[in-house]
Amino acid sequence: MKVGFVGLGIMGKPMAKNILKAGGHTLRFYARRPEIRTEMEALGAEYVGQLSQLGQGCDVVFTMLPDGPDVKKVVLGEGGVAQGMERGSVLIDCSSINPAHSREIAEGLAEKGIEMLDAPVTGGESGAIEGTLAIMVGGKREVFDRCQPLVATMAKSVTYCGPVGSGNTVKLVNQVIVGNTLGAISEGILLATQAGIDPELVFSILRGGMSGSRIMEAKLPKMIRQDFTPGFKMDLQIKDLRNALAFGKSEGVPMPLTEKVTQEMQAIADEGFGNEDHSVLIRYYQQLLP
Amino acid sequence: MKVGFVGLGIMGKPMAKNILKAGGHTLRFYARRPEIRTEMEALGAEYVGQLSQLGQGCDVVFTMLPDGPDVKKVVLGEGGVAQGMERGSVLIDCSSINPAHSREIAEGLAEKGIEMLDAPVTGGESGAIEGTLAIMVGGKREVFDRCQPLVATMAKSVTYCGPVGSGNTVKLVNQVIVGNTLGAISEGILLATQAGIDPELVFSILRGGMSGSRIMEAKLPKMIRQDFTPGFKMDLQIKDLRNALAFGKSEGVPMPLTEKVTQEMQAIADEGFGNEDHSVLIRYYQQLLP
Repeated sequence: MKVGFVGLGIMGKPMAKNILKAGGHTLRFYARRPEIRTEMEALGAEYVGQLSQLGQGCDVVFTMLPDGPDVKKVVLGEGGVAQGMERGSVLIDCSSINPAHSREIAEGLAEKGIEMLDAPVTGGESGAIEGTLAIMVGGKREVFDRCQPLVATMAKSVTYCGPVGSGNTVKLVNQVIVGNTLGAISEGILLATQAGIDPELVFSILRGGMSGSRIMEAKLPKMIRQDFTPGFKMDLQIKDLRNALAFGKSEGVPMPLTEKVTQEMQAIADEGFGNEDHSVLIRYYQQLLP
Repeated sequence: MKVGFVGLGIMGKPMAKNILKAGGHTLRFYARRPEIRTEMEALGAEYVGQLSQLGQGCDVVFTMLPDGPDVKKVVLGEGGVAQGMERGSVLIDCSSINPAHSREIAEGLAEKGIEMLDAPVTGGESGAIEGTLAIMVGGKREVFDRCQPLVATMAKSVTYCGPVGSGNTVKLVNQVIVGNTLGAISEGILLATQAGIDPELVFSILRGGMSGSRIMEAKLPKMIRQDFTPGFKMDLQIKDLRNALAFGKSEGVPMPLTEKVTQEMQAIADEGFGNEDHSVLIRYYQQLLP
């Protein structure tokens, strides 16, 4: 396929490289930073100087951007990607954004006869590099089927979730559970340590019981060691939870716990911990201790 | 050993039976209901008509009661178990209570030269019947070592957690994480279903990812099917969270998420769902939907 890519950041660049590595595809890209241009051209990708020209001749254009407003601007804004895309081609947005924004962007594209999939990823930088991301995809089933092999070059799993926005919805559900579980583990483990019990011992008991979870396995050791090197950055966790709350509001879903834990996360980010791992949430509670 | 037992309810009766089944121990018991008396006597246990006489000649007396005030009354109250227990004997309280209460009871017993272990259990009725409970124990290490083989007749794991109250503390940490995770899963899965996505599909995706947990495996299917047969009753979950909040307060640990989820659980219990499985929490959120 002829593929376009914009958003060659920490995640996007290794993802684009894996498309090239898979073979059988040509890649056009837009990037502002000259070093990205050099690096990608050396791998045989074609640099395009204007966003509006990126989609020309492309079957698929990928976007991997920080948040919904960025995607809207880059895709539908003046001089945006949609301008150069052809009828029947597909925009695949891998950004993690509010599903309501995915729907809006899909509507804007539909007016031009362009298809859209929302395809947010999990698995972090290492998953992007190793091509082992988990990708959740929303959009028309037949468009998904057509694009699945291309998306699979970057992933260990590619799952169809439903109409456009469904990929981001499932991703947000994941983030809601992860975020609140971090809060629950923080409150629980501090109760034990304040009562004088070794948190390592508590971990060794809990992990085999009903409260055991993947997030406990990944993050409780970091909380105990107070090692908050990311991992997954608090600022991104907050962005996801804010998108979940906004989407929840528009769908009429009450999310009181998520609201609470988001406030706590924002409080600790405001103190300068936004670039630390999201498990740094435990510091919010620690600072309230007598 | 010569063993006493009071609190032959849904959990206590099968636990007492497993002590007998293990062999090598004699069992004295106190019970108000005649059918319990008949059943236990048929197994060779000795009925004692007065609580104050239960501990006579016993190396160990077990209590398995609803909450801290019950244990205080039965053990230290007028005509209570402590009256008949001998110096150097051990009270093992298997009730799930506020660790601060465990400490108070231990202090009251220490005045009479009686040792105490707090030894709350997890694993539910089936674990009690099959002798596969997980038991978390607090108290003096040498007392634990002496009693471990006896406690092990009822359990698949018996773990020493630290000084008296530590068993209940670890149990409460478990309950705090379980309770809040139920809330997180409820908020998340409703977001997906309101957005029109099949919750079974969401479950199949999430369970393999970072938000996967044992509580999700056990309870999300019940939420999806709206099958709230217990399992673990909401009223007991609320009792545990109230004990966690009370203990958190006395230890100076802030627990805002636990406070919030406890309020929600109480609201749904007040509507008559207290005897349903704790996963019935999702109904609280469902009732708030437009």
